[in-house]
Amino acid sequence: MERCTIRYRILGDEAETRARADDLRHEQTVELPADLLPPGFIPDEVVGQVEAIVPDGDACLIDVSFAADNVGGDLSQLLNTLFGNTSIKPDVRLERIVSLPAALSATLPGPRFGVAGLRERLGVSQRPLLCTALKPLGLDADALADLAYRFALGGIDIIKDDHGLADQRYAPWDERCRACAAAVARANNETGYSCVYAPHVIGSPEQVRARGERAAEYGAGALLVSPGLIGFPAMAALTERGLPLLAHPALLGAFTTHDSSGISHGALYGQLLALAGADGVIFPSWGGRFAYTREQCAEIAAACARPLGERPAIFPTPGGGMSLERIPEMLAVYGPDVIFLIGGGLLRHGPDLVTSCQAFKQALTPVS
Amino acid sequence: MERCTIRYRILGDEAETRARADDLRHEQTVELPADLLPPGFIPDEVVGQVEAIVPDGDACLIDVSFAADNVGGDLSQLLNTLFGNTSIKPDVRLERIVSLPAALSATLPGPRFGVAGLRERLGVSQRPLLCTALKPLGLDADALADLAYRFALGGIDIIKDDHGLADQRYAPWDERCRACAAAVARANNETGYSCVYAPHVIGSPEQVRARGERAAEYGAGALLVSPGLIGFPAMAALTERGLPLLAHPALLGAFTTHDSSGISHGALYGQLLALAGADGVIFPSWGGRFAYTREQCAEIAAACARPLGERPAIFPTPGGGMSLERIPEMLAVYGPDVIFLIGGGLLRHGPDLVTSCQAFKQALTPVS
Repeated sequence: MERCTIRYRILGDEAETRARADDLRHEQTVELPADLLPPGFIPDEVVGQVEAIVPDGDACLIDVSFAADNVGGDLSQLLNTLFGNTSIKPDVRLERIVSLPAALSATLPGPRFGVAGLRERLGVSQRPLLCTALKPLGLDADALADLAYRFALGGIDIIKDDHGLADQRYAPWDERCRACAAAVARANNETGYSCVYAPHVIGSPEQVRARGERAAEYGAGALLVSPGLIGFPAMAALTERGLPLLAHPALLGAFTTHDSSGISHGALYGQLLALAGADGVIFPSWGGRFAYTREQCAEIAAACARPLGERPAIFPTPGGGMSLERIPEMLAVYGPDVIFLIGGGLLRHGPDLVTSCQAFKQALTPVS
Repeated sequence: MERCTIRYRILGDEAETRARADDLRHEQTVELPADLLPPGFIPDEVVGQVEAIVPDGDACLIDVSFAADNVGGDLSQLLNTLFGNTSIKPDVRLERIVSLPAALSATLPGPRFGVAGLRERLGVSQRPLLCTALKPLGLDADALADLAYRFALGGIDIIKDDHGLADQRYAPWDERCRACAAAVARANNETGYSCVYAPHVIGSPEQVRARGERAAEYGAGALLVSPGLIGFPAMAALTERGLPLLAHPALLGAFTTHDSSGISHGALYGQLLALAGADGVIFPSWGGRFAYTREQCAEIAAACARPLGERPAIFPTPGGGMSLERIPEMLAVYGPDVIFLIGGGLLRHGPDLVTSCQAFKQALTPVS
């Protein structure tokens, strides 16, 4: 039977982690100790198998394989198999999906565009992409659309809703989406660029489905999705709308706040969000308002560039407190296949938003 | 404008945490610093407001109020407002929803049954309820249904799928659900009890919706739901099926593995899962296979008994490695309004499953 191989990092020496791994391979499958299992198929095939243990500092990296049939071709069940109950245990981290059998991989979702597809959509072949956010929450739809218009005139490639924008009475979802998509289209007519607007698709399953459809009707060119809020499967279903997806990490941060537990930065952003359909994954870059390190950000970028199975590479999308001055050091880490997300930094840069956008785009010229 | 009040625990002294709280109230709303906001409505109403700071050991408990209109009556946006970006920051924990305005509370979901409603459904007025799980993964539908039959004969109140059961070829979802619901109905005919079967509803949004409907058609009496896997909004939508919901914490454990960050046990299990519609919340009790302490478990039970707004109290459902011997100490902490979840402990107790179930039920007699 085909198996997928998953790497965990468990604190402790080899003997301790071997015992923990034996627990994990049962916890993530049969939830019974070995002596309560009927002999044969279940312990031989269904239970996870420890494939390798490699010491790694104060921990061990442990590869466990699971029967692909346990997953049943379902993204939510894949999450369950990888880390469902083990998420509740201390001192164990989901480090990496090492391999998925091709037949299983083919039944799971993934990015529809990726780096090459999104570049083609946006008509930008080589340079980093520029993304910004419509904010602050509390502006009305017209004010947000006016912002979008000026961002688009300035040459921003992707204009997304701030992820706090939902369906508030300040700027109701449909009114905002229609106005901002129209504003961006108007700017594109003037500039000849292919800027896209990405509304935040949030709400109940029915609202998410309907808003995904209406976003396409209104002319949105991408969708912003927060799987921590609406669920990974709801995000994956939005790939059917035929629009690129930008994933936002709202509520997912708890997986990465401690190195000893949760999910590694690479696996969360570069693997799980890609499986859920992300063409770009937003995360807080080092040196901004959040606490990710340069190494953790580099790990995300590396995972984005190393897709699972036949999927395309996706864009790391660092944000969370960027400024013009930081572009060179960020380019050095991320390389050209990156989406720079700049929000407040654009608003702060100068009094004229169009000029500020142009300055940011100019700063990317050396690599274009 | 009406506001909800949320309590956070931030590590540091009063001056440090005041600065962190000032950051948080912007991060969770406008995502811009104060000097970039237009004066008036947005800083005065839309931005969060620090209402109280109370030192608490090496941290401070900080109450922040948010405009109810920021939430827009949507569960996913409530999660976003409470902890979206802040989940990514270290040393800050979502401690408790202190209050929701009645008008906002009324637009959010919640349990349809609660303690009283579920007791009425099951015909059990006072004693703790008994729940068990169909396992191990790898058995076929007939074998699982045979287990369900014997559990029901023995007097178990709720028989749930193990949360690892999805739509595997070993026991396809529809075949399993139909067979187990029928087996429990057959046992109820013999015993006169009102045991219910709770299949695990998992999959894509469309599958979750369809499986919720089919579960009701097949005669399931409750649903097992894992919001960490399918999303909180998808769980909330299942309340419309008219069946009690049992929530499983798969993948949510990362919120509770460190005291300094994530979400408190009480807020996660007793508030957020209740808002998503849980009538009972499964969690790993102290002394079993997991690491929750007695105090953390008591906090969950207390939060379950103290509902938000007009909602009913819900059942704490401790599991994760229980045995007959532990019932007295667990009763002392949880009291009678509890669902005891016993899986492997029943299988281990003795050779005859029906007799083992009866022994567990007998152990609850002192309080029935």
